[in-house]
Amino acid sequence: MLRFLILGHHACTDGGFSLNDLPGSGGRMDVLCRCVTSSLLLSHDLRRDVECCLVLASDPRSPRTLLFRGSEIRYLSPDERSAGALIKKALGTICGDLFRESSPGVYIRRGGLEGLLREHPCAVLDEDGDDIRHADSLPDTFILSDHLNFTPAERELLAGLAAYSVGPRPLHADQAITVLLNEVDRRAEKWI
Amino acid sequence: MLRFLILGHHACTDGGFSLNDLPGSGGRMDVLCRCVTSSLLLSHDLRRDVECCLVLASDPRSPRTLLFRGSEIRYLSPDERSAGALIKKALGTICGDLFRESSPGVYIRRGGLEGLLREHPCAVLDEDGDDIRHADSLPDTFILSDHLNFTPAERELLAGLAAYSVGPRPLHADQAITVLLNEVDRRAEKWI
Repeated sequence: MLRFLILGHHACTDGGFSLNDLPGSGGRMDVLCRCVTSSLLLSHDLRRDVECCLVLASDPRSPRTLLFRGSEIRYLSPDERSAGALIKKALGTICGDLFRESSPGVYIRRGGLEGLLREHPCAVLDEDGDDIRHADSLPDTFILSDHLNFTPAERELLAGLAAYSVGPRPLHADQAITVLLNEVDRRAEKWI
Repeated sequence: MLRFLILGHHACTDGGFSLNDLPGSGGRMDVLCRCVTSSLLLSHDLRRDVECCLVLASDPRSPRTLLFRGSEIRYLSPDERSAGALIKKALGTICGDLFRESSPGVYIRRGGLEGLLREHPCAVLDEDGDDIRHADSLPDTFILSDHLNFTPAERELLAGLAAYSVGPRPLHADQAITVLLNEVDRRAEKWI
């Protein structure tokens, strides 16, 4: 199982955002929507062995974590609004500290980064990391930031973790996921 | 200069589509929007050395070609609606057989694939091609199809062109562009 954790620093934690304004009213929810689709969707197929977790943290005192499971997901199309609609529905679901399913393959709970890090040993996917092509083996969980850098508090939580980079130029989070998955695909299929 | 040509088989050729329904009313315009952003946008930066041409062909007798120039583009944000709005504005611009600028860095003209192929010797980016990582050098113009396969008539036009693949699994067109650009970046920066 491969897993991506994405931090949405300004991402809305209630379902009140507009699907017509994912960047503004959603707090750059468009970035997170693209991360979901790049993690889980192939052309006319799904990546059933991938999970994508979003941390929505516009209110850092009360963040939400969403989990998208490639093995179970339904109603996810490649356009941003489709993922946005699933996120909106999840945020309209009453939840506690345990994941609760809001639609097939989509789960929500209270809590943010710290809980995820306790559950999943992970590596950072960041511009300053080691080249993924030169890694003998790749971790199965990666954490990425949205359009913003990790905050000092996040960097403290992530200190000591291995860090990997997908290439020499700064990419969007969804683009970095796409390149990482290409490397994983190639290793699995001996396309090296 | 690197250039991507993308065929939008059902893509709307007038500006009447809704930004709230790019897949439906736009004829999978969402696919083309993502191709524009994956071609031209880096994280907080532009790919000034890349151009992206879209062929909108919902009416194959009267297609339109749009050109997005990374060196000149303005008002392009990473979300799909942003590219969609630029496409919509271009389609509302009266044009002839020569490119006419509809907004900074965005041009439109009448005509479709045949004209582009006369102007740009190109290679096909497709699942059945040769692995890009093993190519001694890469072409500077690639043609891709949207979510549909090339039609028999298109295959005839493309017959004899070199074909390249980015990996072992079938990707969306925008994902394939992202992986190809990563390979180009790596070669340029000696990250091989």
